[in-house]
Amino acid sequence: MIIVLKPNPDKQQYEQFTKYLTENLGLTLHYSQGESSTILGLIGDTSKVDIDLISAMEMVESVTRIQEPYKAANRKFHPQDSVVKIGDTGVKFGGGHFAVVAGPCSVETEEQIIICANAVKKAGADMLRGGAFKPRTSPYAFQGLGKSGIELLLLAKKETGLPIVTEVMDISQLELFDDVDLIQVGARNMQNFNLLKELGTINKPILLKRGLANTIQEWLMSAEYIMAGGNENVILCERGIRTFETATRNTLDISAIPVLREKTHLPVVIDPSHATGYSKYVEPMCYAATAAGADGLIIEVHNKPSAAWSDGQQSLTPEAFTRVNANVREFRKVAERI
Amino acid sequence: MIIVLKPNPDKQQYEQFTKYLTENLGLTLHYSQGESSTILGLIGDTSKVDIDLISAMEMVESVTRIQEPYKAANRKFHPQDSVVKIGDTGVKFGGGHFAVVAGPCSVETEEQIIICANAVKKAGADMLRGGAFKPRTSPYAFQGLGKSGIELLLLAKKETGLPIVTEVMDISQLELFDDVDLIQVGARNMQNFNLLKELGTINKPILLKRGLANTIQEWLMSAEYIMAGGNENVILCERGIRTFETATRNTLDISAIPVLREKTHLPVVIDPSHATGYSKYVEPMCYAATAAGADGLIIEVHNKPSAAWSDGQQSLTPEAFTRVNANVREFRKVAERI
Amino acid sequence: MIIVLKPNPDKQQYEQFTKYLTENLGLTLHYSQGESSTILGLIGDTSKVDIDLISAMEMVESVTRIQEPYKAANRKFHPQDSVVKIGDTGVKFGGGHFAVVAGPCSVETEEQIIICANAVKKAGADMLRGGAFKPRTSPYAFQGLGKSGIELLLLAKKETGLPIVTEVMDISQLELFDDVDLIQVGARNMQNFNLLKELGTINKPILLKRGLANTIQEWLMSAEYIMAGGNENVILCERGIRTFETATRNTLDISAIPVLREKTHLPVVIDPSHATGYSKYVEPMCYAATAAGADGLIIEVHNKPSAAWSDGQQSLTPEAFTRVNANVREFRKVAERI
Amino acid sequence: MIIVLKPNPDKQQYEQFTKYLTENLGLTLHYSQGESSTILGLIGDTSKVDIDLISAMEMVESVTRIQEPYKAANRKFHPQDSVVKIGDTGVKFGGGHFAVVAGPCSVETEEQIIICANAVKKAGADMLRGGAFKPRTSPYAFQGLGKSGIELLLLAKKETGLPIVTEVMDISQLELFDDVDLIQVGARNMQNFNLLKELGTINKPILLKRGLANTIQEWLMSAEYIMAGGNENVILCERGIRTFETATRNTLDISAIPVLREKTHLPVVIDPSHATGYSKYVEPMCYAATAAGADGLIIEVHNKPSAAWSDGQQSLTPEAFTRVNANVREFRKVAERI
Repeated sequence: MIIVLKPNPDKQQYEQFTKYLTENLGLTLHYSQGESSTILGLIGDTSKVDIDLISAMEMVESVTRIQEPYKAANRKFHPQDSVVKIGDTGVKFGGGHFAVVAGPCSVETEEQIIICANAVKKAGADMLRGGAFKPRTSPYAFQGLGKSGIELLLLAKKETGLPIVTEVMDISQLELFDDVDLIQVGARNMQNFNLLKELGTINKPILLKRGLANTIQEWLMSAEYIMAGGNENVILCERGIRTFETATRNTLDISAIPVLREKTHLPVVIDPSHATGYSKYVEPMCYAATAAGADGLIIEVHNKPSAAWSDGQQSLTPEAFTRVNANVREFRKVAERI
Repeated sequence: MIIVLKPNPDKQQYEQFTKYLTENLGLTLHYSQGESSTILGLIGDTSKVDIDLISAMEMVESVTRIQEPYKAANRKFHPQDSVVKIGDTGVKFGGGHFAVVAGPCSVETEEQIIICANAVKKAGADMLRGGAFKPRTSPYAFQGLGKSGIELLLLAKKETGLPIVTEVMDISQLELFDDVDLIQVGARNMQNFNLLKELGTINKPILLKRGLANTIQEWLMSAEYIMAGGNENVILCERGIRTFETATRNTLDISAIPVLREKTHLPVVIDPSHATGYSKYVEPMCYAATAAGADGLIIEVHNKPSAAWSDGQQSLTPEAFTRVNANVREFRKVAERI
Repeated sequence: MIIVLKPNPDKQQYEQFTKYLTENLGLTLHYSQGESSTILGLIGDTSKVDIDLISAMEMVESVTRIQEPYKAANRKFHPQDSVVKIGDTGVKFGGGHFAVVAGPCSVETEEQIIICANAVKKAGADMLRGGAFKPRTSPYAFQGLGKSGIELLLLAKKETGLPIVTEVMDISQLELFDDVDLIQVGARNMQNFNLLKELGTINKPILLKRGLANTIQEWLMSAEYIMAGGNENVILCERGIRTFETATRNTLDISAIPVLREKTHLPVVIDPSHATGYSKYVEPMCYAATAAGADGLIIEVHNKPSAAWSDGQQSLTPEAFTRVNANVREFRKVAERI
Repeated sequence: MIIVLKPNPDKQQYEQFTKYLTENLGLTLHYSQGESSTILGLIGDTSKVDIDLISAMEMVESVTRIQEPYKAANRKFHPQDSVVKIGDTGVKFGGGHFAVVAGPCSVETEEQIIICANAVKKAGADMLRGGAFKPRTSPYAFQGLGKSGIELLLLAKKETGLPIVTEVMDISQLELFDDVDLIQVGARNMQNFNLLKELGTINKPILLKRGLANTIQEWLMSAEYIMAGGNENVILCERGIRTFETATRNTLDISAIPVLREKTHLPVVIDPSHATGYSKYVEPMCYAATAAGADGLIIEVHNKPSAAWSDGQQSLTPEAFTRVNANVREFRKVAERI
C-alpha cells in the first residue's frame, strides 16, 4: 500500500499515524521525502488495513493498494489449486477436476424434477440443480415451492444418486439445507454480508455467484467473508454481468476464468444459462467456458422448456443437453491436453 | 401487454392459452391477424402476468409490456402524492413536505453521536441518521457497533428530540428497531426479497435505497414487495448508481426525481454523500436535488470527518452543513414558488 | 507517478530506464528500497509520460498516476476560470458568465428555423442551436440538410442577431463553418482525434460534448487535444452518459459540474434535452444544472415538437421554454448569491 | 413494428399518418381497436421507418420495433454465411473459413515489423496486422508512424507474402490505403458515420471493430452504413466492451459470436489482445473464441513486448504465439467437427 501525504503534515498527527501503522498493524514503513510530497510505502499484511479510514485523514493526498485486500482467497498465500469436494459423493471441482451440474431453474412438481433428474443423469451430468427459493424481481411472480421444493429435490437425489445444489435466500431457511450437498448464494445476495457470515460457520461447500454489476475483487471479498468464518469450501460461479447489451440477458465474462485462476486458488464454474438468457446461445458458451479452462458448468435443463414455470427461454431440452455435454467433454480433452 | 405469436400456432395450445388469459387472469384480448403473424393485445390488469412464462412458450415470438408491472407504487392508480409521516414527530416527506436528515455514517461513541446530533439539530436538520449495522465490502473493515449503536442513537434521540433513521441488514436484527423512527434498506439489500417481505408486515416507514446498478423499474418493484405486504409507507432514496466515472464514488442520477414523480406517488429523497463520495462535491448536489424537486435530503455530517471510522471523506463538518442547509432552504423556496 | 518495481530488476535495464526518466523527461526520482520491492516516485511534469510504455516493461510491477495526464486544461496550472467569448457578440461562458442556448435539434426549413430563432430570442435565449449535419445510428434516418442547413442557420442569425452553434462531423465540412460562432463536436466524435487536432488549429470556440461512455478524464484529454494545438477556447458540454437506466435516454451526470470545476478552468454547459430524451424531464434538469453551478444550458426548442424531423420527443415548445428560462434565471440568482 | 395510439386521436392527423405509412412507405396496416387504446401493426419492410419521428407524434403512446432496423446485414434476407475474401490472396473469413491475423500493435521500425512479420508467418498466421495511425487518449502519447508506417507494412508484405490489415482514422488518409488488403475501423470510430459512408464506396474489405460501449444492434447499423453504400465486404471484430471490471482492460463479449451468427451473415473475428489488455489472459480467450465458433482471431504479437512503443502489456512473444496458434487449431478441429 502506498500513501502519498500532503506537504507539511501536522507533526503530532503524523507520528501518531505512523505509530499506529507500525505498532497496531505490524507494518514496516518505507518512506521517501520529496519536495512537494512524502510517499509512505507500507510493507506487510495490508489486507486488514481499512483504506477508507486512511483516505479520509487530513494529511493524506491519496492511497493506492498494491496488495490485494483478501487473504484466505488469495493464490499468493495458497499457490495450489483448491479442490472442493461435494461431501463424499466423489464429485469434485478444481485442481484438474471438472464437473457438470444440470437441472431445471425451478422445482415445480415431483414428476417434473424426477424426469429432469433422470434425464440429466442419463446424459452424464454429475450433479442436479433446481431452485426451491426463487429470487424474483416481481412480488407477483412465482417465488418457488420453498420447503416442499427442497423435499422434492431430496427425493430426486434419492432416486438418481445425484448430489444436489439449490439456492438459499435467507439465514432462516438454512435449517432446511441439512441434506443439500452444495448451497448456492445467488447474484442478488453476493453482498448479503450477514448471510455470508452465517455460511462461514457451517461445514458445507458454497457456490457463490457473482453479483450483477460487481467486480472480481468485490466477488473475492465476498468469498473472503465466508472463508474468514472458517468455511474454505467456496466455488465461484460466473453467471454474466450487466452491460448495455440487450441481445443477451447478461454478458458472460469468460475472461473472469483466467483472472480468477491468477488471483485465487478457488474453483470456477460457469453458468451460461442465466448469462445469456436464451437456450440458443447456451451451447457455444458451454464450449467457450470449457476451452478457457473452467472447472465446471451449471446448465439449465428442463423436460419441457416451453412449459417451465420460470426461465423456460434459457433451458435446454434433455436431448440438447445430451449432445452439448458430449461435446463439452471433447473440448475438455483438448483443454486438459494443452 | 402485446404478444406477437409465430405463424400457425398449434390450435389446441392457442385455445388453452387464450382461455388462461381471459378466465384465470381476467384479461380482455384484442387480436389482429396478419399474414405472417398474429398480434394479441391484453387489456386489463397485467401487473401480475409473469412475462417470463409467456416468453418461453413455443408459439410466442415476442412480448412487450405496455403497462408497468407494479400497481401499489404506481401513480396511475394513486394520482395524489403520498405523504409519509415519521410517526407522530411531525416530520413528513412528500406532497409538498420537505425534510433534511443529517448525521454521521457510523455511530462510533456516545460522545460522537451526541455531539453530531446536537450539531445537526442546531443547524436545522429534521432527523438524525447514523449507521449501527454497516455493510462493508471487506470482512476486516469496521462492521458497525450493532445493538449498542442503536442504543446510542436512541440516547441521541432522547437528548435532541430528533427522530432517527438507521439501516437494517437482516431480518434477525429487526427486533432491535422498535424505537427507530424510519428503517433504512441499503443499496446492497434492495433485492433482498425476504427482508423486503418482512418489512411489508410491519407498521413503520421504510427508506428504500436504490441498488448500485438497478433500474428505476426494478427499484419500484422492490417498493412493491414492501407495499404488497401491507406497508405503504415507503420513501425512495437515490444514492448514486455505478457508472464508468471514477472521479465520483457513484453517479447521482438526479433525473430519477422527475421520472419517479411521474411513475409513482411515493416521496423521493436524495443522498448526495454516498453518491459522490467526496464532501467537496456534496454541496452543489444538495442544491441540484432541491432545485429538481426532491422531497428531502440525507446528508452525512461528522463532528470530525478526518477521524471518522467510516466514510470520513464524504462527511461535511457541522459548520459546512449549517451553511449548506441554509442555502438548500433558499433553493427550496424557488422550487416551491415555481 | 509512482512506479513499483519487481524484486531484483536487471541492473543494466534499470540504469537505462532511470537515465531515460531523468535525462529525457527531466523528472526527479525519489526511490525507496524495500525487502520485496522498490518504489520509484517521479516528481516533475509527468503529463507527457506514456504510462503504457512503462507498464509493459518487464521489471515494472505497477504504475500509478498521481498527477493528471492533462496540462493545458488543468486548473492546477491555470487557477482562474477561463471565460470563453463567442466572438464579439457579447455572449460569454464561464468565470461568472452564464448563457442559455436554444433551438431545434435539426434545421428543417427556412420557415421552421426562422420561427424557432425568433421564439427563443423573444424568450430570452442568448444563442441559437440547430443541427445541419446529424449523426444518426441508422443510414436510413434523416441525416440533416448539410450545407443548406448551415445557410439557413446563417439566415436566422442575420434575422435575429443571435450567434449560432452547430455540429461538425468531419474535417471536410469545416470550410462551411466560417460564419458559425461556436462549433460543436458531438458525443460520438469526442475521440475522433484527427478532427480534434484540426480544431486545435483554428481560432474559434469549440463546444466539446462528452462521449456516451467516457470518463471525465478522457473528456479532458480530448479537450487537451484541441488546446495542445493552440485553440484554448473550449467549452465542455455534459449531455448524459450511458447507464442501465432506460426511463431516460441517458443519465445526466450533474456531479460532473463540481468535478470539472475542481479539475479544469474551462466552462461547463449542460444539455438536458439529449441527456433525458423526454421534454417532460427537461425542465427540472435545467433547474438542477443551474443550482449546481453550470455556466450555461443548451436546450432543444421546436415550434412544433410533434412534427420535428428528429428528437421531437425531447423538444420544448417556445411557450414551455419561455417559462423554463425565466425560472432558470431565478435559480441562477440564488446560485450567484451563495 | 407495433404502434400503440392514445385514446381518441385527432381524426385528420390519424388519416394523414396512416396514409403516409401505407402510401409513402408501402406498409400494410393491421389494426385493433380496444376500449382504451388502438394498436397498429405495421407489416412490410420497416427497416427504413424513422422510429424517432413516430415516437414524437402527439397521438402515439409507444412504438415497438419487431423487425430489425438493418437489412443488408440481416441474415433474414441473406440466409447463407457471407465469405469475405481478402483480395486474391486466398485468405477468407466466414462460411467455414477461419483465419488468424497477428502482428504488433504499432509499426515501429523496419527491423521490428520485418522480424514480427517473419515470426508470425513462421508460426502459421494468415495475415499481418500493425498500426500506422494510432488513436491515443493522450495527445502526448505516440500517435503512430503514419504514412511511413504503411510503407513499412507494405515492405513486410512484400517480404513475407502475408496480406496486411491496418487502421484508418480519417477519410483524408484513405489515399494511402491502396495496397492495404483489409482496412480496419477502430472502436472509437465505429460511429464516425462520414468515414463509414466513404468506406461504403470503395471496393475493399473492411474490419469493423465494435465500439467500447455499443450494443450489437448499433454495431450492425454501422455495418449497414458501409453496406448501404455498396461495399458488402464487412468483417465484424469484437474487441471487448467497457464494463465495471478493472482486472481486464475491457470485457470480451464472447456471446456476441452466437448472437451475430443468428442476426447476420457477416463473419466474426475476435481480438483478445485489446479485450483483455494483458498477454497472460490472451491465450485462454483465443481458445474460448475458437470453441464458440469465431471465424478468426486477431492477436497482438511483438518480438520484444517489454520494449513495444504501445500496448506491450498485451502482446504475445512469437514463441507464445506459435504455441497458442497450434492449440487454436486443435480447438478449431473440434469446433468444425461438432
